[in-house]
Amino acid sequence: MPILYTLKNEVLEANKNLERLGLVTFTWGNVSGIDREEGIVVIKPSGVPYNELKVDHMVVIDLDGNIIEGDLKPSSDTQTHLILYKNFPNIGGVCHTHSLWATSYAQANIGIPVYGTTHADHFRGEIPCSRPYTDEEIKGDYEANTGRLIVDTFRKINEDQIPGVLVASHGPFTWGVDANDAVQNSRVLEFIAEAAYRTSLLNSNISEINVNLIDKHFLRKHGDSAYYGQDSK
Amino acid sequence: MPILYTLKNEVLEANKNLERLGLVTFTWGNVSGIDREEGIVVIKPSGVPYNELKVDHMVVIDLDGNIIEGDLKPSSDTQTHLILYKNFPNIGGVCHTHSLWATSYAQANIGIPVYGTTHADHFRGEIPCSRPYTDEEIKGDYEANTGRLIVDTFRKINEDQIPGVLVASHGPFTWGVDANDAVQNSRVLEFIAEAAYRTSLLNSNISEINVNLIDKHFLRKHGDSAYYGQDSK
Amino acid sequence: MPILYTLKNEVLEANKNLERLGLVTFTWGNVSGIDREEGIVVIKPSGVPYNELKVDHMVVIDLDGNIIEGDLKPSSDTQTHLILYKNFPNIGGVCHTHSLWATSYAQANIGIPVYGTTHADHFRGEIPCSRPYTDEEIKGDYEANTGRLIVDTFRKINEDQIPGVLVASHGPFTWGVDANDAVQNSRVLEFIAEAAYRTSLLNSNISEINVNLIDKHFLRKHGDSAYYGQDSK
Amino acid sequence: MPILYTLKNEVLEANKNLERLGLVTFTWGNVSGIDREEGIVVIKPSGVPYNELKVDHMVVIDLDGNIIEGDLKPSSDTQTHLILYKNFPNIGGVCHTHSLWATSYAQANIGIPVYGTTHADHFRGEIPCSRPYTDEEIKGDYEANTGRLIVDTFRKINEDQIPGVLVASHGPFTWGVDANDAVQNSRVLEFIAEAAYRTSLLNSNISEINVNLIDKHFLRKHGDSAYYGQDSK
Repeated sequence: MPILYTLKNEVLEANKNLERLGLVTFTWGNVSGIDREEGIVVIKPSGVPYNELKVDHMVVIDLDGNIIEGDLKPSSDTQTHLILYKNFPNIGGVCHTHSLWATSYAQANIGIPVYGTTHADHFRGEIPCSRPYTDEEIKGDYEANTGRLIVDTFRKINEDQIPGVLVASHGPFTWGVDANDAVQNSRVLEFIAEAAYRTSLLNSNISEINVNLIDKHFLRKHGDSAYYGQDSK
Repeated sequence: MPILYTLKNEVLEANKNLERLGLVTFTWGNVSGIDREEGIVVIKPSGVPYNELKVDHMVVIDLDGNIIEGDLKPSSDTQTHLILYKNFPNIGGVCHTHSLWATSYAQANIGIPVYGTTHADHFRGEIPCSRPYTDEEIKGDYEANTGRLIVDTFRKINEDQIPGVLVASHGPFTWGVDANDAVQNSRVLEFIAEAAYRTSLLNSNISEINVNLIDKHFLRKHGDSAYYGQDSK
Repeated sequence: MPILYTLKNEVLEANKNLERLGLVTFTWGNVSGIDREEGIVVIKPSGVPYNELKVDHMVVIDLDGNIIEGDLKPSSDTQTHLILYKNFPNIGGVCHTHSLWATSYAQANIGIPVYGTTHADHFRGEIPCSRPYTDEEIKGDYEANTGRLIVDTFRKINEDQIPGVLVASHGPFTWGVDANDAVQNSRVLEFIAEAAYRTSLLNSNISEINVNLIDKHFLRKHGDSAYYGQDSK
Repeated sequence: MPILYTLKNEVLEANKNLERLGLVTFTWGNVSGIDREEGIVVIKPSGVPYNELKVDHMVVIDLDGNIIEGDLKPSSDTQTHLILYKNFPNIGGVCHTHSLWATSYAQANIGIPVYGTTHADHFRGEIPCSRPYTDEEIKGDYEANTGRLIVDTFRKINEDQIPGVLVASHGPFTWGVDANDAVQNSRVLEFIAEAAYRTSLLNSNISEINVNLIDKHFLRKHGDSAYYGQDSK
């Protein structure tokens, strides 16, 4: 099944990119990708070091979490990924890390305001921080509840324009059109978080930038009239 | 045309130096150089990764932005570079990055005071932060307006002695006698920004250094009686 | 004696990992391992650079500190290690570093609260900071007293669930099931310390996370029903 | 003259170590060594990149600054080095950098208190910051005056027990028994400065550690009864 093989390779490379981009310590991160037509998700196995990962380690599951192919247990965060795929219809990849700067914001329980055009180039507004977990969410189906908490956070936010979230007291999840795009958004989020931290310590009175400047930058990269980069063929 | 080839190579190397010096994430930066006699500018293409850049990718334009040579679209910031070349007659290269520390100051909307001799060795005074963009500037010819905003910031500042600026809510632009000198000034600016950040957090009452100390350091490297480094032949 | 040779190699590799994981400057760190059946401890020699360390440099001592094998003097912190082995019956390895972030917390004389799930995945509660040394402790048998100070800090804390401590004004000690596990816990502690620092500067009102969330994360990795990672054979 | 050749090589290696240890940006640092018997100093040439330095580039001067051997101009900070050699009779090497953390303290015009045992292992007390330069010192023989300012700072401080200083608004100078020891002390100072910065931001009420703890650590490495490291032959 060549399509699946391609997806497994994409997810493998996206997971390896986590380490190349400096986003992970030990095995603390995982990426998945989805084949929407087949209803099949490929995800990293739990607890395997990135430099040992091979394409055959990738775990293939359906949207209910049943293992279709693979000898290893999938990431312990698998249920969170599945909830996101079910609720965010346009996304093709999901990424979770404990990257330092985004995690620090998540632990501080505050979202990241749009302090500059680098942020607006990639996220059209504040990157939200979820509300804290309730005791019921923790004691119940915890990983699925993490997914539901994220979906709840985006009830009034467009997940296609703000492709990432901070789960309070935990860390970031990002998504994108495919697995690698989700990883790229994690790298961007990490930069944004570090710059926002410095900005807020330099000037505690700073506020979000002009909404027109946000739109200008977001739309020159992502809108119908985007003019950044080369035309794709 | 061997002179142009040399310029294209210089601009290529200057762009690659952005990555070697740790000044860029992904493709977020661009450098150009000018041949004043020919009235020709060479600039990085938009959105191409630094490690894939080749000399033939460089885009050759005239001062009105017309493409003279090259198959790729020039950097989306091209108009900003051109405005600077037209208004700052002595500069030979321009560099723009989203380097972390300078961007943090830009996002905080504050200039970088002269807190030490490292700053004074390279910039003879505070590195200014522009005023915010107006709505008209954002909605109009945005990239050209960014150039005009910089020029406006330097109405009473000598751009040859302070070869860099922070564009509010955006990031740094630097310039120099050629493309590589512009990049070097970006690296110096990044160091200065990080040291200034630490300095201001260590001592919130610190003020700028003695103007005689600024002049002593700037002039021992840049004045007519400069005595730093080896004599050039 | 093949078991001892294995232990010497484990301790050698664990010491070399200190450098690979970015936990040490110069020679400021040491790791040991114990063979509980033989009552024998293997520890790094004092003041030898990590990249010159060989298996024959490892010093073999008994629990009273008598040298059994080896031509070099053991780490100056050896007595601290021995006190920990005598008082913490389940540990198989001890690690001491001056890693930057954990040392900064130790110097600030404050423990590291549980600000997030990364912390709870590895340490089931605040990482305590010891009380300051008394003059008697300093002037007496200093290194052994450091061990006693740590043991005293854990009178009401389970050292198997919180495998690390900050010695006030000094730095961190961690432990684990073997030498390498102790080193891994030092790396985790360093991450936790850096993230906690950022968290507390971002939000000075932040408090520890819900105890149910701590338990959920600690136990999904360490409890009887742990489900993180692959089943060991 | 083989002794001189050895000294030139030592000074070359010490200068190259500046880059290996991450203490310099561009060419912003210089190291020298002295042969007390011959009254001869070897120092880095001005403005030469570290990776291009060769043994024949080293400049040999007498204590009045006359060039004895070498085709290049000596470091612009040469007079500062010479003043230190003349006033600190036991030192064999001098190092100057603009390393980030020590420079930040110098720019903040504050010394570095002894917040922990890592500091006390190497410096027996606060690392002092000089008073600011006077206008006369700046406009006069500036580099020699920098040396005099340092000597003045140490009127009541033992330079053999505190082998380094922060020159206000400028940066650190360190010294040692030879050129490489001076560089090592610069690296230690950089670590101490970074840890002290973190410590003071974590706990603004923290004070210096117990003087007995300072003495214990300094003397176990440097006193007559030092017991750290291996016995030298």
